This record gives sequence, C-alpha cells and structure tokens, in this order.
Amino acid sequence: MAGNTIGKVLALTSFGESHGPALGGVLDGYPAGITVDTLFIQGELDRRRPGTGRHTTARNEADSLEILSGVFEGRSTGMPIAFIIRNTDQRSRDYSTVRDVFRPGHADYSWWMKYHNVDYRGGGRSSGRETAVRVAAGALAKLLLRRSGISIQGIIRAVGNVSDTSHDFPLHPSRLVPASSEQLEAAYLDEIERARMDQDSVGGIVECRITGVPAGLGEPVFDRLGADLAKAVFSIGAVRGFEFGRGFACAGLRGSQMNDKLEMRDGKVSFLSNNSGGIQGGISNGEDIVFRVAFRPTPSISQEQKTVTRAGSDTMITITGRHDPCIVPRAVVVVESMAALTVADHLLRAGCYE
Amino acid sequence: MAGNTIGKVLALTSFGESHGPALGGVLDGYPAGITVDTLFIQGELDRRRPGTGRHTTARNEADSLEILSGVFEGRSTGMPIAFIIRNTDQRSRDYSTVRDVFRPGHADYSWWMKYHNVDYRGGGRSSGRETAVRVAAGALAKLLLRRSGISIQGIIRAVGNVSDTSHDFPLHPSRLVPASSEQLEAAYLDEIERARMDQDSVGGIVECRITGVPAGLGEPVFDRLGADLAKAVFSIGAVRGFEFGRGFACAGLRGSQMNDKLEMRDGKVSFLSNNSGGIQGGISNGEDIVFRVAFRPTPSISQEQKTVTRAGSDTMITITGRHDPCIVPRAVVVVESMAALTVADHLLRAGCYE
Amino acid sequence: MAGNTIGKVLALTSFGESHGPALGGVLDGYPAGITVDTLFIQGELDRRRPGTGRHTTARNEADSLEILSGVFEGRSTGMPIAFIIRNTDQRSRDYSTVRDVFRPGHADYSWWMKYHNVDYRGGGRSSGRETAVRVAAGALAKLLLRRSGISIQGIIRAVGNVSDTSHDFPLHPSRLVPASSEQLEAAYLDEIERARMDQDSVGGIVECRITGVPAGLGEPVFDRLGADLAKAVFSIGAVRGFEFGRGFACAGLRGSQMNDKLEMRDGKVSFLSNNSGGIQGGISNGEDIVFRVAFRPTPSISQEQKTVTRAGSDTMITITGRHDPCIVPRAVVVVESMAALTVADHLLRAGCYE
Amino acid sequence: MAGNTIGKVLALTSFGESHGPALGGVLDGYPAGITVDTLFIQGELDRRRPGTGRHTTARNEADSLEILSGVFEGRSTGMPIAFIIRNTDQRSRDYSTVRDVFRPGHADYSWWMKYHNVDYRGGGRSSGRETAVRVAAGALAKLLLRRSGISIQGIIRAVGNVSDTSHDFPLHPSRLVPASSEQLEAAYLDEIERARMDQDSVGGIVECRITGVPAGLGEPVFDRLGADLAKAVFSIGAVRGFEFGRGFACAGLRGSQMNDKLEMRDGKVSFLSNNSGGIQGGISNGEDIVFRVAFRPTPSISQEQKTVTRAGSDTMITITGRHDPCIVPRAVVVVESMAALTVADHLLRAGCYE
Repeated sequence: MAGNTIGKVLALTSFGESHGPALGGVLDGYPAGITVDTLFIQGELDRRRPGTGRHTTARNEADSLEILSGVFEGRSTGMPIAFIIRNTDQRSRDYSTVRDVFRPGHADYSWWMKYHNVDYRGGGRSSGRETAVRVAAGALAKLLLRRSGISIQGIIRAVGNVSDTSHDFPLHPSRLVPASSEQLEAAYLDEIERARMDQDSVGGIVECRITGVPAGLGEPVFDRLGADLAKAVFSIGAVRGFEFGRGFACAGLRGSQMNDKLEMRDGKVSFLSNNSGGIQGGISNGEDIVFRVAFRPTPSISQEQKTVTRAGSDTMITITGRHDPCIVPRAVVVVESMAALTVADHLLRAGCYE
Repeated sequence: MAGNTIGKVLALTSFGESHGPALGGVLDGYPAGITVDTLFIQGELDRRRPGTGRHTTARNEADSLEILSGVFEGRSTGMPIAFIIRNTDQRSRDYSTVRDVFRPGHADYSWWMKYHNVDYRGGGRSSGRETAVRVAAGALAKLLLRRSGISIQGIIRAVGNVSDTSHDFPLHPSRLVPASSEQLEAAYLDEIERARMDQDSVGGIVECRITGVPAGLGEPVFDRLGADLAKAVFSIGAVRGFEFGRGFACAGLRGSQMNDKLEMRDGKVSFLSNNSGGIQGGISNGEDIVFRVAFRPTPSISQEQKTVTRAGSDTMITITGRHDPCIVPRAVVVVESMAALTVADHLLRAGCYE
Repeated sequence: MAGNTIGKVLALTSFGESHGPALGGVLDGYPAGITVDTLFIQGELDRRRPGTGRHTTARNEADSLEILSGVFEGRSTGMPIAFIIRNTDQRSRDYSTVRDVFRPGHADYSWWMKYHNVDYRGGGRSSGRETAVRVAAGALAKLLLRRSGISIQGIIRAVGNVSDTSHDFPLHPSRLVPASSEQLEAAYLDEIERARMDQDSVGGIVECRITGVPAGLGEPVFDRLGADLAKAVFSIGAVRGFEFGRGFACAGLRGSQMNDKLEMRDGKVSFLSNNSGGIQGGISNGEDIVFRVAFRPTPSISQEQKTVTRAGSDTMITITGRHDPCIVPRAVVVVESMAALTVADHLLRAGCYE
Repeated sequence: MAGNTIGKVLALTSFGESHGPALGGVLDGYPAGITVDTLFIQGELDRRRPGTGRHTTARNEADSLEILSGVFEGRSTGMPIAFIIRNTDQRSRDYSTVRDVFRPGHADYSWWMKYHNVDYRGGGRSSGRETAVRVAAGALAKLLLRRSGISIQGIIRAVGNVSDTSHDFPLHPSRLVPASSEQLEAAYLDEIERARMDQDSVGGIVECRITGVPAGLGEPVFDRLGADLAKAVFSIGAVRGFEFGRGFACAGLRGSQMNDKLEMRDGKVSFLSNNSGGIQGGISNGEDIVFRVAFRPTPSISQEQKTVTRAGSDTMITITGRHDPCIVPRAVVVVESMAALTVADHLLRAGCYE
C-alpha cells in the first residue's frame, strides 16, 4: 500500500519524477469560494527554486504552475484542484552514475531493495524536486489559512556550526537566506561557502512559527496536532529531527519550570509562558505554535566516496554536476508548506473553517 | 473527524477513559495463525504499570487484559482482535480539582476549548492511562514481528540532568529503570528522588533500537518509515522531540561525515556507519533503526501553581494525590509499542510478512 | 488489509464472533453533547433479536448492551463510544457440522480459502449475529439524526412470492413483521410458515425511506450518497440487490418519464415527482430518500443437501438446530441502521450537523 | 470531506471538469514492473468516447491520454501513475442554459445546494465526461489483472423495452453495441433510434462477468467484495440499481433453490450452480462473478420541460445541443472499468498479486 497522499479532510496526492514529463498534485477537500492567487503560489514556488540564491544549484527551471481543475473564474469550486509543473531542464546526462552505483547517503540502495527498478534520470521520485508539489499545495493551504487569520513563517536557526542563539523572530527576515538578522544571514552564507570550497555540504535547523491558530485543533489520541505536524515535516526527505515547544530541552527541565501557568488577562485566559509550543494534550491552546526541524547535510558531494555498484562490487564514486552544498535555505518554504497543509487539514477536521 | 485509529493495514482503534468502565482497543488487520502469548502481553502491561518501581505512583491497578475476539484456540484468526482492560481503582476523589480548574501543563484547557465538556474523574481520555491500550496492542505487534526476526528495545538515555554519554546498548539492561549500566540506573533513580523531594518532576530521553528490519519498509513520499515512526511516537502525550540516526546533531555535520559509505562484505552490501539510523529516502536499508524521544516532565506537581478556573477567575492550584515525578521509566515500553505497531504496519503494507 | 471499519467521519469498527466472549463496536467521531438514550438503543436491539416473532429462531439471547466509553453522565463526550454485547447462549454443539463440512450457501468455503482456519462454534464472524453491532451503532446514529430532524423507516415489500404492490408507506406499520397493512403482514407470515413446513427458507425485499435529509449530502465523484448507501447495505451478508428511486425499472423508462420536473411552491424549489429517490448527481436534493434491498433466502435449511467435506470428499449435509426460515423481518432494523450510519457520516462530512 | 478517491491499496484520485483544461487521475499503489500498453488504454478510451456509434452524441474529442508519471521505459515503476486527458472541444455555448436554470434530472439543483457555485460550461464535474478518467485507470487495472488471469467483460441486457432473455455470454459480442447476438444489437439500436425520433431518451441494463478471480478476495465484515463492487458501480452517475448473482430474483426463491451445492470434480471443490454470483459471505469463491447494473435514461432531452430558474421563478427549458439518447452502449466500458479497479484493489489487499 503506497503512501503518496497526506491529510484526511484536506488531502494532497503527489505524483511525478524529477525527470519525467511533469510533477504535480491533486488537492481534494479544498473549500469552494477561495480566491486562488496564482501570483502568490508562483512566488512561493520561486522561494524553493534552485538558482535564486548565489549559493544554490545552477539548475534553473521555471517551475511554472499549471492549474488543471477545481478553479473557475479565479475561485475554488470545491472540486479537487489538480496542478502540474512541467520538467523543462532535464539534462539527465548529469546523473548517469545513478544507473550503476549506489550513491552514499542517497535513497538509491533502499529504494532499489523495495522497487527493484531504477529511474537513473536523476533520482526519480526520491529527488528533492518533488517538494515543489508540496510548496504549490502549501501555498493553496496558506491562502485558506489566511482567511482564518492564520500565518506561518520559518527562519533558519543554524547552518553547520553557525547557530542563532537569540530567540528573535522578526516579521520580515532577510529573505535570500531567512535569518533573524543580516549578520546571521551573512554568517550562514559564509558557512555554506566554506562547505562548497571543501567540496562538501552542511546541514542546519529551521524554526517555524504559526500564529493565529484557534484553540481546539488536533484529534487525540493519535491524530494530535503535534503528531501530524511531525509526520508532515518528517515526510520531507532530508529531515532527521523535530521538536516543538521546548523540545529536547524538556528532558532537563523540572515540571515547575516547564508548566505554562495561566492567568486571566483582559477577561481572557492567558498563559504566562509558551513552553508547550502552543499544543497541550495534542490540541492547540491558542498560543503560537513553534517547532524546530533538523536537516541533514546534502548527500551529493563532489569528494570521492567509497561505495558499491548495483552489480555488487566495491567502487569509488565522485558525484559531478551542480548540487546545493546546503538545502536549508530552500527548505524553509517546504517546512512552512507542510505545516500549512497540516493546520489547514485540522482546521477543516475541527469544523473551524467557514 | 476524530483520530482514534492509527495504522493503515494493521490498524489500532483505541477507546476508553481513565475512570470509565474500561479502556481497550481493536486491532484490525492482524494476520491469522499467530500464537497469542497472553503471558507476554500481560508482562508488557506490567512494565507500564504504575507501582512497579519504587518511584512511580502508588495507584495500583491490575491492568488485567481480557481478549474479546479474534483469537480462537490460542491463535489469531484474521478477525479483529478486541481487548479491554477494566478500570478497578477509580478513586475519583483524588482528582476533583479537575472539575473547576485548568491544571497547568495538562490538557485541561485545550480539551475544554475543543469538546466543551469535562470528565472530571481524572483527565478522562487525556490521561496517560490510555497508553495501556497501546502497550497491549504493541505486544501483539511484537509477537508478529518476532516471527519475522524483528525485535525492539528501548533504554533511557537521560533523566533530568543525568545523561548517558555512552552509546552502549546492552541486550539486557537493568529493568526497574532500563539503562545501559547499573550505575546509570542508580543515578536516574537519584535524580527522580531529588525531584520528588522538591515536590517537582523531571523529564528525560528514551532511545529505541529496532533490529532485524528488512530493507524495503516505508512508503514515500509521505508515509516514509521515519515519518510514520515520528507520528506514532508523537501521539504519546508527553513527547516533545523525536530524532532518528544522528538527529539534531546532523545540522552541524558535513555531508562527508554524515554519508554512510557502502562496501561489499561477505558478498553482501554493507554500510561502514549507520548515521542514517537505518532509514534512507524514507525506506529501511536493513541496518538497525535507531531513534530518540524527548519526554517533558510530568505536569502534575504538588507545588502551588498559578492558574485559572473554568469560570474565568485567577486562582492557585495544589495538585494532591500520588503522581509520578518522572514517567520516563514507564514510558519505555510505550515507545517500544508505538514503534512495534508502526513497523508491523509497514511490514504488512510492503507484503513482507508471510 | 482488513475491512472492519465503515464510515469516514463517523466511523464504526466492528468486532466479535458469534460464539466468542462478546461482540461489539467502537464508534469514533460521534459529536459531544448528545443524550444517549440507552432504552432506545436496547429497543432497537430487541427489534433484531431472534425469538421476538413466532417465526424466528428460538435461540434467545438478551443482547444486553454495555457501553464502555465515550458517554459521561448520560451524554456523549466526543470520545469514541465503545460498546459490547456479551454472548450468553453459546450452545456450540448445535453447530458442530461446521467443523468438517462446507455448508451450501454459507460463507464456509470462501472464508476457508481466505483465512485457512475455521471457527466451528457457529460461523464465527460470518454469522448474522454480527449485525447486532450494526444495530447498536445505528441506534446511536439515529439519535444524532433525530436532532437534525432526520428519520429512517423500513418496511417489507416482499416475502417469497408475496409482494406489496401498493406504494403505501404507513408511519406506524404493523410491527411484528413491518408491512404496509395487516393483511400483508399476515400473508408474509403465512409465506414464511409455508417455507418452514417445507423445511425450506424464503427471501424478500425491504424498502427504506429516509425523511428530513437536507439537500447537499454526498461527496462526488466517488462517495456519492447513493454509492455509500449501497456499500453500507451490501455489507449485510444476505443482501443481493439494491436500487434507489425507480431503480431497475429505470431501464424501461423514457427520460421524459424519469426526469423530476421542478416548480416553485410556497417560494421554495419543489419537485413534481421523486423518481430519483432523493439523490441527484450523487447528492441529496431534499426529497425523501427511498431505496429497496433484496435479501436471499436463509442458507440454513434442514433439507438434505449435497456438499463436500473440508478434507475433500463428497457428502450430504442436514443442518439441524433452529434457524430462521426468513431473516427479512429481523433485517429491517439492520437496513435502517446501515442507512442511519451512512447518512450521519455524510451529515458530518458536509458540516451540516451542529 | 470530499470524495474523489476510490480504493484502498490501489487508489484512484480523479480530477477535472468537462470544460476545464483537462481531466485526469492519479493511480497510487500500482505495482512496479507491469508493461503499460498505451494502445490498449487508448482503445478502452475509444470504447467510451462519444461519436463512435451512429447513435451517440456528435461531440467528438480525441480523448488522447498523456501519462505524466509512474511509467519509465514502458513499465510501471511503483510510483503513482498520473495521467491527463486534455479537453479540446469545449464549445461551451451549447450549454449556456446551465447558468440560469436547473435542468430536470440533472445534478444542477443538488450540486448548487451543496457548493453554491455553478460551472456553467457544461455540468463541470458532474458531467459524464468524468468517466473517461475511470476508463483510463480501469484499463491500467485490467493490465494488472490480466497478469493474474482475470478478465472482465460487460454486455447489454436491456435497452428501454428491449430485453435479452437469454443467458448467453459470448466471448466476442457485437461491438458497436455489445450484445449477446446481432439481432439484439439491431433491436437495441432501433429502440435508441425510436427514443431519438421522439426527442426522448432511454435507459438500460448492463451485465458484467469477471472470470478467473481466485477464491479469497473481499474483506468482511464491511469491505465485502460485493459491497465494494456496488459502491464502485454506484459511483457512476446514472446508475440506479445493482444486483449480483440471482439479485432481486432471490426474494422469490427458496433456500433449496438458491444454495449452490458443492461436489468434488477432478479432485477440486466445485459448485453445481452459481446463484451466488461468485461471492459468498462477502468473499469470492472462485466462480465467475456476475452482476447487473441498471442505468436511468439520459436526463438531457430536447422536449420542453417544466423547471425553475436559479433565481427562483418557474420557467420552461428546452435542452439543445447534441446528446446521447442512450448512454448504455458507452457505459459498458465504464462498468467494466469500475469492476476492474475494485477487483485489482482487492487482489492487492489480499496479497494475491505477485
């Protein structure tokens, strides 16, 4: 039983390979009557696109969205919204090593063991290019959430050994590499550049904040809001860690430090802190939802690495072509998109959207 | 749309409140012909039960399992397996504060905002007692996995400020508080005792290792094995962080450090390291699956805390009754159980079970 | 992948064997705040129970319902409602032939080919006794629907060769054998008695009418209201045909006869006929939903029949014990129950319930 | 919660409007390694296409299939197969009445009550044109089934008042209007022609036979094979009745007539009759699966009909343009396709496909 659909009431089905005719998705359960701002969606796709920063891969596709259904005269109709993004820059010659050799750190070996075939044109469906589908669908989810006053924003908290020790969360972060200050942006870029010069790559951490979420979203005992956010974010290939609220730091805290005390403020229930990251007992409590995501360094590096051929003999591999030394800047919008799809799904599940 | 079912081919539906007549579950999709070792299941329930350690709550229920269906003459029949655990020790007087006041750190406020009713008998369904259902179902999943040579084991890596800096993973850890050494067990117990003396609580970290998983489990792009493990583990109420393989530490690594190189060993593809924690591209690669889970400190503490009444006025709360100062020792089997359910579901999804 | 759950937003998971400890169900997604009238539920169970009519099997179980969760102080809480019905009259000796021989017309052979085990205590889960679970859950659904002004009622339109050629649908049909007139009730009973005297059984037709359904229920293109009603009704073991509106008679009609013309009446859109049976394009149109269901004759007959042993040799079988010569009278409430679950699910899916 | 996905292990998500850019589908769960014979798929689409018979609508679209993903070098890869069919002949002027008036017998009113918008270009998603998606996906399912020796064939048993009283089921029926004899084909065509001359339309009955199905498919108690076939077939807009085996005729039969007796033949269990239509207790028994489907007459007729405007006043409507007086000939392949998707889903669910 395959797993290319996520969400229960707002359900995204994703399809497409990196070097096939097109990638795309079908978003079912999207309510009728929402103005579909295609410029906004295209802008979100541009945030994910390689080649927008100095430091990203030079493969440059327009990632031009075509909506096939579910929108009429500029508004959603309640029918499934299908969209495709044609692959236009398919220089598969850059990837021919995939045919014969398992690339270390890639999906090559485990996918081969499962499917017993190989799309040697560039990773096929395990390629990060698939995340374009999530960004397009996530942008649609953001348009829906916006009508309910919910917004989602991610910034980078670490790249390699450069960490953001502040807790600042500026509304308008520097955008080439979303960071809490221009100094950090520059430091992140330097760290990425150092990796590139070393023919290597680096990982990083993205933090995401969701504001305006009403109390009451999440469906215990299994479909807790935190659990579904974790699932959605871990469905991004390069993610290796997820925490919300105080996260792993909770382990070292006392209950008296961790518990968010309550008080009445202006006639409303308020919390004196947000250590729980906006989710208690699996349900949103009206505070900002805050979570952090760890990304592994890009597996494609141009250093020579030990590996094995598909035929079963030892070999060395040097991955040529142009690859991101760090996907974290481009991943910010992907994280936001998965969060948007999850929160929108739960908003509809709870019947909170009108 | 509620969320009390987890798993797609092996699906657990959970029900029951902490102080209602019974908790229980229905496990659908369990294959026919498996010997249902009820002593093993009861043993697993005993690992979760309060009162088995010196340092756990004195509420002492037998947690006695009754299987209602799906098993005939000691073996599974392929029909849904329903089981219940009667609540026998329902001293709801211990919990009467729940009726009028939101307990800090608990689900009280967010659940009230969602359901607009309160089961003041002890947290109702948001109680940790619900995890007994997961342990019973997880034990059934372990019996299934055992036939495929898969085993799952968790140990504690941190309690409060005491951390296990080793990477030892003994096959037979000390069992009162599963740790990699007797010294660590003692140190964890001391840390818990210190919290208790301070009328406080502590969190901790559980590590879980799954051995014998064949390559090929996991269903990209959304139902990746890591994503479904994260979802299942985050569905445990007190979890605040999850990472697999090198986890958050990935952020500071270079690709050349992170990538697991391959070589032929005894005619088989082997990995020189397991930084990926047994999952690549969302699919198991045949190595051990290793993940870590962060638990928040128990919210119930006997210190006086600021809070708000359901009626909307400021107040102070002192939670009486007997509560665990640290749930981490009891949580180990719950983590293992959610992992077992997830891996068994994916084993069946992949058609790898016979 | 097993199939013991039906419904998407209101989801019933069924479990239990005819001669195991208990049958039961878990109804997830049931809204909070509904008064759970247990007397009504028990009354519905009594309508299905054998032994209530002269002409039904003498096996007489109390079918006493125990609710285990999801109801507190008489009202639903929004948590899953689990309930069980203990099996008290388990004279399995009546059924011992099942162990060795495939009973003609029963599920014995096909289930054996699938599960490779046999619950020789009385058909196990393929027994009609499983429908008690549906009736209990259906009664809960009816309580929900009643708050939205929706009611469901079935009557018998045929038993064997006795057919109801009227289109009368009395609000209070004769109840021992629900029929449109007392004369028909008597004729149905006579037809059943004739079959019994012949050591044989008869089938029949149930018609069901759902009133008060708002326009707008149903989710094309696949989860049309008619399709989900058909699925739910065909999940009853003995059903062999389903039609709504004019049904099979449509084949011989002209469009000009079939189309329900519209007119304004008292300022509201009205239909001049209801040939579509209340569903158009897969969505309810506000008219009464009307469908008909064909039941096969009970397979258990005491005549000698040719068959085959499990070991693979020809034999003759004479089924002893007490069996209904006609299940149609008891099936009326089962049909109503599956309709109630389906309409309630779609009411919640459409967000029409408050 | 919308409903544009059908199937659990082999899941088809459908999208697209009759006059939007394209219709299409995503088929997830399709196994790797199957040769995707695009000529066969195109041939199936041609069977559904208007304009292939003398008596069908003159709207003539190529229905040309483009596969976007999931197929590489002519074989399925295990990834989701997405395909689109561009709408090329979109003369929406033919349909302008839809904007202002509810067409009798159509989905116009009920869809308006649900979605509160109208795709006046030609019925939008409620158009029968959506069935092209099902035929393309059904053709893929047939290719999968063929490898397991399963074939599916439908013929027409009635058009209007012309009925096929034989039980013949020729392997190669006359193809313009699939019938059991050339005489019947001619009679059906005449009946359709009479309706056209009367500016009217007629309904009919399709029978479908599935051969080669192994015993063991179907998942009681809810996802019985008959229930899922009924659901799939009733998801076709114009269907009003479904029966399998002896169907509605069962009501008048005795158990002794209905029960399929068993005997050993050539060392194998065999049935002396197939009154159960190949399904017993919800599970296939290895015999041919046989079911019949009733179609209503096409609602679009050029006679003047009484109706109501969207604005709420009485009016008369005359539907111009070219419409099929009988969709039954084109519906045969749609019925087969829904059956193919259902059986393939259950084959995979049962783990019977390799």
